[in-house]
Amino acid sequence: MKPKNKVRSEGIFHLTASEAVRRFKNGKASITVVGLGRIGLPTAAMFANAGLRVVGADINPAVVVSINEGKCRFVDEPGLDKIVERTVKRGYLKATADVSKAVSETDMVVICVPTPVDHNKTPDYSAVIGASETIGKSLKSGQIVIMESTVGPGTVEEVIKPVLERESHLRAGIDFGLASCPERSDPGNIIPNMKTVPRVIGAVNEHCEEIVASLYENALGVKVFRASNPKTANAIKLTENLFRDVNIALANEFALLFEKLGIDAIEVINGCATKYNFMPHYPGAGVGGPCLPSNSYYLIVEGIKSGNIPYLIRMAREINDRMPDHVIELVSEALNEVGKTVRGSKVAVLGVAYKPDIKDVQLSPLERVCKNLKDLGSAVDIYDPMFAGEQVFGIAVKRSLAQAVKGADCIVIGTAHSEFKKLDLNGLSHLVSSPAAFVDARNVATPKEVMAAGFAYRGVGRRFLTPTAEATS
Amino acid sequence: MKPKNKVRSEGIFHLTASEAVRRFKNGKASITVVGLGRIGLPTAAMFANAGLRVVGADINPAVVVSINEGKCRFVDEPGLDKIVERTVKRGYLKATADVSKAVSETDMVVICVPTPVDHNKTPDYSAVIGASETIGKSLKSGQIVIMESTVGPGTVEEVIKPVLERESHLRAGIDFGLASCPERSDPGNIIPNMKTVPRVIGAVNEHCEEIVASLYENALGVKVFRASNPKTANAIKLTENLFRDVNIALANEFALLFEKLGIDAIEVINGCATKYNFMPHYPGAGVGGPCLPSNSYYLIVEGIKSGNIPYLIRMAREINDRMPDHVIELVSEALNEVGKTVRGSKVAVLGVAYKPDIKDVQLSPLERVCKNLKDLGSAVDIYDPMFAGEQVFGIAVKRSLAQAVKGADCIVIGTAHSEFKKLDLNGLSHLVSSPAAFVDARNVATPKEVMAAGFAYRGVGRRFLTPTAEATS
Repeated sequence: MKPKNKVRSEGIFHLTASEAVRRFKNGKASITVVGLGRIGLPTAAMFANAGLRVVGADINPAVVVSINEGKCRFVDEPGLDKIVERTVKRGYLKATADVSKAVSETDMVVICVPTPVDHNKTPDYSAVIGASETIGKSLKSGQIVIMESTVGPGTVEEVIKPVLERESHLRAGIDFGLASCPERSDPGNIIPNMKTVPRVIGAVNEHCEEIVASLYENALGVKVFRASNPKTANAIKLTENLFRDVNIALANEFALLFEKLGIDAIEVINGCATKYNFMPHYPGAGVGGPCLPSNSYYLIVEGIKSGNIPYLIRMAREINDRMPDHVIELVSEALNEVGKTVRGSKVAVLGVAYKPDIKDVQLSPLERVCKNLKDLGSAVDIYDPMFAGEQVFGIAVKRSLAQAVKGADCIVIGTAHSEFKKLDLNGLSHLVSSPAAFVDARNVATPKEVMAAGFAYRGVGRRFLTPTAEATS
Repeated sequence: MKPKNKVRSEGIFHLTASEAVRRFKNGKASITVVGLGRIGLPTAAMFANAGLRVVGADINPAVVVSINEGKCRFVDEPGLDKIVERTVKRGYLKATADVSKAVSETDMVVICVPTPVDHNKTPDYSAVIGASETIGKSLKSGQIVIMESTVGPGTVEEVIKPVLERESHLRAGIDFGLASCPERSDPGNIIPNMKTVPRVIGAVNEHCEEIVASLYENALGVKVFRASNPKTANAIKLTENLFRDVNIALANEFALLFEKLGIDAIEVINGCATKYNFMPHYPGAGVGGPCLPSNSYYLIVEGIKSGNIPYLIRMAREINDRMPDHVIELVSEALNEVGKTVRGSKVAVLGVAYKPDIKDVQLSPLERVCKNLKDLGSAVDIYDPMFAGEQVFGIAVKRSLAQAVKGADCIVIGTAHSEFKKLDLNGLSHLVSSPAAFVDARNVATPKEVMAAGFAYRGVGRRFLTPTAEATS
């Protein structure tokens, strides 16, 4: 079945909620998704998969061409490629670089553009503002604009809404609908997450909330938490991510302290996890990706403006940001144990992605680890299965683990990719330049087995463990 | 069946683990529990209930007399009274003030004495050290000492062990057993917790670990997490409590910030709780009780000694400690709204216990709330169902809610006792001195219903909500 219609005359925002639901269900609703990145493309594909007519708009022509060929560039999102291929083939999903035209031809517009922070850690909303200006220029009465990009609370009300109203000469809540529905997916798991994780919706009024909630409930089959307004919805998105960032910082703080006290922080966290009211988070080389390292700042700037600085959140950020330096300390210490210096040593960094089994180095803490090692005079080789043969941080990634490790004085585990969770440590010990060091920043191996393979061991949260101290564990 | 024997000739520590298990199972094992407080009494009662012969030792003669009459003074621990009554009646549990004699007549000794912090926030280990000296003087080869009191990591190895060895002229791990098994129960839920929450055991050697693990597995029927050593077991206990303290501080930080941004922090937390990797904690008047306000300092002092200060944990403590001041701010603001000052107003504080449905005001943040209100010139009345008719903070607690609220200019909800979760707000509005204020520090009522009853509303995390802003929620 091909989609029936291209343009609707009666705007969806002017329908009753039940009429809108009927339009979602009979495949006559249409959506433009602006921004076809890691969130935008699966969002577009999932709406198309639900029988909506979807136009994906992106300013990058190469992305547009590739999607219209039914191709998906996110190799690390299981299930996405098939959905893109199928929905493009059946005509439910098409891509365009012409945002204005797409907006003018669809019932609803979903904004999925990036909201990074700049080098001063100030939120950079230029992409959402730019998208809103373009959308506003084509916006017609009866359309609904949905903001999925993560922004600080108040940004939709105080920044996006005025831009849309100014450019369209229409009024939000009266002529057109406006809602926040922050994306809540975990990279690498986006398709399963989109099908199961409840969505949070905050709209300019109850009618808009009703229609947008129905859209997500019907098209994605998920539950919806109805927040009072867009700023509350955005506060929820930030709060859940900051919970993770702060708790990872707490795990890192425990790691640094327990290293000094000769206690295995990983064992401690695993012990705590046997209690019903504890949630385990683990220490590591730091926190990367498009969300956690940035999201705190969206709230910190609002805090500073309102005279209420969230110190705990800010300190958590600083702790996580310093973890790459701690990895360098551990490398230096482990090399020292085998009588080598960082200068002149060859270091093999295994894994540079910001999280396991993801092809993504956005704000990866391993960038600083690699840079600092080079600054200290190491020769750095990288192996990462997701980037084999590509360039990362200006370094050519080796095509195999063996190539990276061969002749190395130190191995650093930077990312807990599946491939690194079953390392042949004895095999590696024959490839390295013995005596060699092994720094496990991601807890992929036990100190005991690493030391048994002849390496000088250091691990984040397990710094001072010796074979003797470890024997009873 | 009455217990069979009073003194064992062969020490339990010199048995094989399976022989020890047999002794636990056939009711021939005996234990002294030192300290019969909120943890010690249920511990003694539960061991006695499992058929072990238990001597509870406490320096307070009144406690000893009452327990030997089968009485339990903890009215807020469901199930405990029955177990104490039954085990005393059947002769499995008896109490004594003579710790030395008790120790000399039993196989094992469990230490359950308090470990508070002093006014400088320095851990005060005098009770555990005193108990260890007394125990050490009577200790015989083959006995096992188990530390349930919460202490900093290393305290058992560096403080308790030397005291026991010095006083007994015996060697830990060779002549006698020594282990940490930190209590993990939540006041108000201690009996259910003791039956279900896994225990963490760290011992001086593997043989001791084996026997102590068997004791808890057999007598309490719980799983055991075997930690490498006592210091790791103690680190686990502190880490799980600090996780709570830090996350409550984070909730308080969000509350303070979202109040400024006109966002309902309770709504935000409830929204976040719909995500799989979030654990909700709620803001309030602060954190009290025997554990959370103290536990951080056990780790902070070790951090300071080792040159690695846990800043996040320390800041969390400071945030939680400041929450009573915030409650005062809200009182002042709410009274201001109805044209009254704190000076000269009558304030009814409902709930002073540190947590719901508990008869305990140890380090309760409501003490500072009451004191500061009095310092500012308020007349403070207290009602708390757990303390009706008693004296708390030097104030006579009213016998009923109505007595406390009558003529009040402001009501403060200090503890979310069950009784306060179904308040008749309209009824209260006829008792107060109208116009009156209502400050909800524990989220027992919605702003809407409080305002509908005619009060000026303020709530922690919900400061600036007005009837209008709240209407859409």
